[in-house]
Parts: sequence; C-alpha cells; structure tokens
Amino acid sequence: MSIRIEIPELNKAVKQDTLKYIDTLTKPPGSLGKLEELAAEIAAMTAKPFPIVTPPGVLIFAGDHGIVEEGVSAFPQEVTAQMVQNFLTGGAAISVFSRQIGAKLEIVDVGVAAEIASHADLHVEKVGFGTRNFLKEDAMTGSEAEAAIAIGMNRAFVMIDHGVKCLIVGEMGIGNTTPSTAILASLSDAPIDKIVGAGTGLSNDAIAVKARVIAEAISKRQPDRHDPLDVLSKVGGFEIAAMAGAMMAAASRRVPVLVDGFISTVAALVATRLEPNSNDYMIVGHASAERGHETAVKMLNKTPLLQLGFRLGEGSGAAVAFPIVQAATLMLNEMATFETAGIAEKTVRKEEVR
Amino acid sequence: MSIRIEIPELNKAVKQDTLKYIDTLTKPPGSLGKLEELAAEIAAMTAKPFPIVTPPGVLIFAGDHGIVEEGVSAFPQEVTAQMVQNFLTGGAAISVFSRQIGAKLEIVDVGVAAEIASHADLHVEKVGFGTRNFLKEDAMTGSEAEAAIAIGMNRAFVMIDHGVKCLIVGEMGIGNTTPSTAILASLSDAPIDKIVGAGTGLSNDAIAVKARVIAEAISKRQPDRHDPLDVLSKVGGFEIAAMAGAMMAAASRRVPVLVDGFISTVAALVATRLEPNSNDYMIVGHASAERGHETAVKMLNKTPLLQLGFRLGEGSGAAVAFPIVQAATLMLNEMATFETAGIAEKTVRKEEVR
Repeated sequence: MSIRIEIPELNKAVKQDTLKYIDTLTKPPGSLGKLEELAAEIAAMTAKPFPIVTPPGVLIFAGDHGIVEEGVSAFPQEVTAQMVQNFLTGGAAISVFSRQIGAKLEIVDVGVAAEIASHADLHVEKVGFGTRNFLKEDAMTGSEAEAAIAIGMNRAFVMIDHGVKCLIVGEMGIGNTTPSTAILASLSDAPIDKIVGAGTGLSNDAIAVKARVIAEAISKRQPDRHDPLDVLSKVGGFEIAAMAGAMMAAASRRVPVLVDGFISTVAALVATRLEPNSNDYMIVGHASAERGHETAVKMLNKTPLLQLGFRLGEGSGAAVAFPIVQAATLMLNEMATFETAGIAEKTVRKEEVR
Repeated sequence: MSIRIEIPELNKAVKQDTLKYIDTLTKPPGSLGKLEELAAEIAAMTAKPFPIVTPPGVLIFAGDHGIVEEGVSAFPQEVTAQMVQNFLTGGAAISVFSRQIGAKLEIVDVGVAAEIASHADLHVEKVGFGTRNFLKEDAMTGSEAEAAIAIGMNRAFVMIDHGVKCLIVGEMGIGNTTPSTAILASLSDAPIDKIVGAGTGLSNDAIAVKARVIAEAISKRQPDRHDPLDVLSKVGGFEIAAMAGAMMAAASRRVPVLVDGFISTVAALVATRLEPNSNDYMIVGHASAERGHETAVKMLNKTPLLQLGFRLGEGSGAAVAFPIVQAATLMLNEMATFETAGIAEKTVRKEEVR
C-alpha cells in the first residue's frame, strides 16, 4: 500500500507510573480489577498520567455491497440509506447511545448505493455506489480501497482536531457481515463454517448459502493473506476500509479507539495488519453474538469490556461500553490517595496481599 | 419479624407489551441482547411502558463489626469512619462514579464505631457503635436488627420521595465480608471454604483464620436458617440489615434496585428471604471477584451485568453498571420504530429468524 502512517509506541514509563499511582488511591490494591488495567493502558496510549476520554466521538462509515445480489442479507439494500437517515434524525440505537455519552456523531457516506439528502452531520465522500459483487469480480480496485482508507483517516483527523478524545468507530451497510467474514477467513486459518453468522437475522439455511457464497468467492478471487489491501479490494467493503483508516489515524494521534462488534473488529484487524502499532490503541467494547466475533477478537489479542449479547453494529456496543472507559479515567483523575485523605493503610504486609 | 412491607407483583402485561414494542424498533429483532430483556424487566417493575431510571440515587450504609477483634480484616477498624469522610469529601471510588452518573449520594451511619463530623450528605442514625463480636455473643439483638432494617427503609423512602428512580445500595464497614459470609453460610448449603474470600486483601493464611472464625461462630450461635432476622441478629451487621431494608422499600415503590458486590448481594438475599417479591426488583450490577459472590448471585437467581473483576464494595460496581440500565430505558424511550422512520422490514419471514 502506498499510504503509510506513523504510529508512536505506547509510553510504557507512563503506564508503570500510573500503575504505581493507582495503588495509592483509596481502595484495596487491585480492587477495581479491569478498570485499573484499562486506566493504565489509556495512560500509555495518551502518554499522560491523567488522561481524559471526553468528549468521545462516534464516526459511522456507511457503504453498500454488490454481494447482496446473492441473497446474503435478511434486509433489503435500501435499508442502508434509510438507516443513515435514521442516524441523522436521531432515532437509531447509536443516535440514542451517542446522546447518552455526550458524543459528537458523524456519518460518512463512503459508498451507499443511493443519494442521501445533505445534513450537517453527514459527509458524502462516495468511492462508489456500493462495491461490486465479489462473487463475480473484485469488490473494488486497489486505488478505491486506498481512497476509502484515506477518507477514514481524514474524517478521524478532523474529529480529533475538533477535540474528540476517544474514537468510536461504527458502520452501516446491509450485507456487510459477508465481506467481513470473507476478510476474516482470508486473514486467518479459521474455517468459514466457524466464523459465518446470522448477521441481521438469517435462518440456518440462509447462513449455509452465505457460507457457500463466501467460500466460492475466496476460491475465485484468491486474496493474498499477506497483503491486507489485496484482501480489502477483492472481498472487502468501502466502509470497512474507511474504518481501518480512521482507527490508524486515531492511533497516530495517541487517541484511544473503542472498537465495536464484528465488522468493526474485522476493520481493526485490517488496521493491525497494515500498521501493527495501531493495535496498541484499540479497546474492544463488547463481545458480539455474531459468530465470527470471538475469532476476530482473539486475533486482535484483546478482551471485550462487555458481554451483553449485542449483534447490532453501528458502533452501538462500543458506545454502551464507553462509560466504563470514562470511569477508568475518572478514577485516575478524581480519586483521593490514602495520603491526601488521611486514611490508614493496610495492617498486613504488602507481600501477603494476593 | 414484626416489620412487614407490601411489595407489588411485577406487571407482566406491561412486560409483554414492551417486548412486542421492542421488536418494532429500528434494529434487527433481539440484536440488543440483554439490554432488551433489561428494558422489559424495568417496564414490569415500574409498570410503565416507557420507564426512566434517572436520576439514580446511591445510598451507602456504614457500620462497624465487633468480629474484627478476631483479625478477619486487612484494614484497621478506624478506616470505616475515615472512608465515610472520604465519601463525603468526594474522593472515594463511589464518590467519583456517583458524579459520573449524576446520582445523589447519601451516607447513613447506622453503626460506625466512632463519631463522624456532621455533613449535609451524612445521616447519623446509629443503632450502636459497631456490632458485638459474634464469636463471643450475638452481633445484635433482634430489636436492633429490626431498627437497622427500618432505618434502611426510611432512607430509601426519603430518597425516592425526592425523585430517585433507581436505587443503588452500597456499604462501608471494615470486616463486613465476615458477617456477609456468615449470613450466606447460614442461609445456604454452601461450605464455608467455598464462599470465604480475601475481602480487602487477606493472605491465604488469614483467609483460613477467617473461615475458622466463621465456622466456630455459626456453631456457637446456631442461627436459624429459616429465620433471616435471627441470622441477621446473630451473625449480621447493622449496615447489612439496613441495606436489606432499603431494598425492600424500593421494591415496595416499584423502584429498580441495582445491587452491588458481595455484601450488597447478601443483603439482597436477606431481603428476598424476608419479602420474596422484593427479588423481582433487583438487578445485579456486576460479578465481584470476592469468592462468595457467585454463590450469592445464584441464590438470588440473577445474572450480573458486568464482569470486570471488581471487589471494592461501596456500591462502586453497581454505579459503573448504571449506564447500561440507563441505556436500556433510553432505547425504549428514544429509538424510532420501523414505521415512524419509514424503514423497510426484513425480507425473510419471521419464523426463519433464529
């Protein structure tokens, strides 16, 4: 790929200092469990001992998929544009949860197969009117994949320039669990049967059709597993490429990325393969009920914050997880230490503590 | 027990209507997983199709324990009063998380073994200066247990009268995993070794001492497992009794109760045994890392919302879980339906949906 982006190393010194500082806060050492690890990780990402993650930003990339011709989705393609409209008028799940967490919400039409009326929160930067049907031809050209990545990067940079301190990356695209599964299968050793799922609600018979379509497409297109851009262009999606771009851009600015469900995690995997350091800036918000998510999360080497059985996408699970990320940073910024609060320390020796 | 409180049945008709309504919202049916169940449960609790849970209230009951003479805690008893002070000055974990969720925070001194300077958010209603050492004598009299329950009820009623729509019940009391474990052992068949834990950070040797103290105390006191008040008075704590009272009071007003970790869950179990309907109004916020919590949660017949390895108490885990409860109600109140948003429905038949 011709686009490269420099992503700094985590600041491990700040992380160590933060872990030590957390043990001075007025609570038994380790008693806030994963929140303590998360706080230290965010300190390492931001290189700040007292990081903040507010305001968060939600960036949703929308695109359509030629592969829906093969009957791989439970909903018709027109729903992509209709749901973008729903995001903009505030009625979608991600609209509701973005308001709850005080997030700026922006939608980027990177390839919806319809014109959408202009709106202040909508950026129309179409690479095409949907990808091509990758059972029959490559989903997009290499240049189109790069264009989509660059759009994602740019939108993330603009959001961060406007003050966003934590980036939630979501998507909308009827049929997009199919390219996501194809990407994951191409980048892993996972058998398609183990990672193909119901998406928005397919029957078992329809899932079998989807699996056959993906297997046949991979066999025909022969994506190169060592070349993520080749995989993206042959069996990917515009919004998936843009999401990977946005994640890499946030990482380059030391901004934590809150990854959502299956599609978002596959995009995170693409970003990790393109720029390995980007992985250090990713937090997986939740464990999706979509079958392939667990495999994708393991390949990212992450542990999701929430287990609530979501399988909606849009960034919804990441947005619901955001208050936990916020709580971690508030713990650091606002809790008193034993010394400042004048509280007696433990009566047992440190080495006795489990 | 002479105190009884009437707790209404859940409104199952509202629950069914709510479940049907959720399937009209602009998302694939079931795709918000546990959030959908939670929304329907809150509708059943409140008997409202569009319930709200804001503002939440955090009610912390503080008390000391004579049993700490036996060396069952990693921290000295004076820390109870010091931590109450820390709650009031805003430096404790629960202070931070209460601010994050916009909760009113009140502390009730129901039996701290020291005088605490007055403060607008502190209610001093001491039943005693700590319980008695229940290895040697009953922790409190039956009248004292009832008094503590009544105090808890009253504080919950006042908070609800001031508009609180979801009650988080927390505690502070050095040594209070010991009475909690003793209560749980008394009310269950669980062997003490399986439910005794490190509390604020005991070594394995110290945990063994704690287990022996609890076993010997139960053997001497012989609490009647069919009489929760007898169990409370023989091996309980003032704050645990008050928490049970607060939970029953909230249930009687159809206000959802967000249960915290080990001690809070044991109090919820006591409330459930005293007034079985109160159980219907309880949501367990998180799975604590304290060893006995899983047993207590199973006895409540609940599934915790979060798994973050917390073991702090104070109500901290429940407060961190609150945004999920809020998200469930916001989904109900603010999401558009397929009809209002003008979005196409699924193309597959309902019976094909997994």
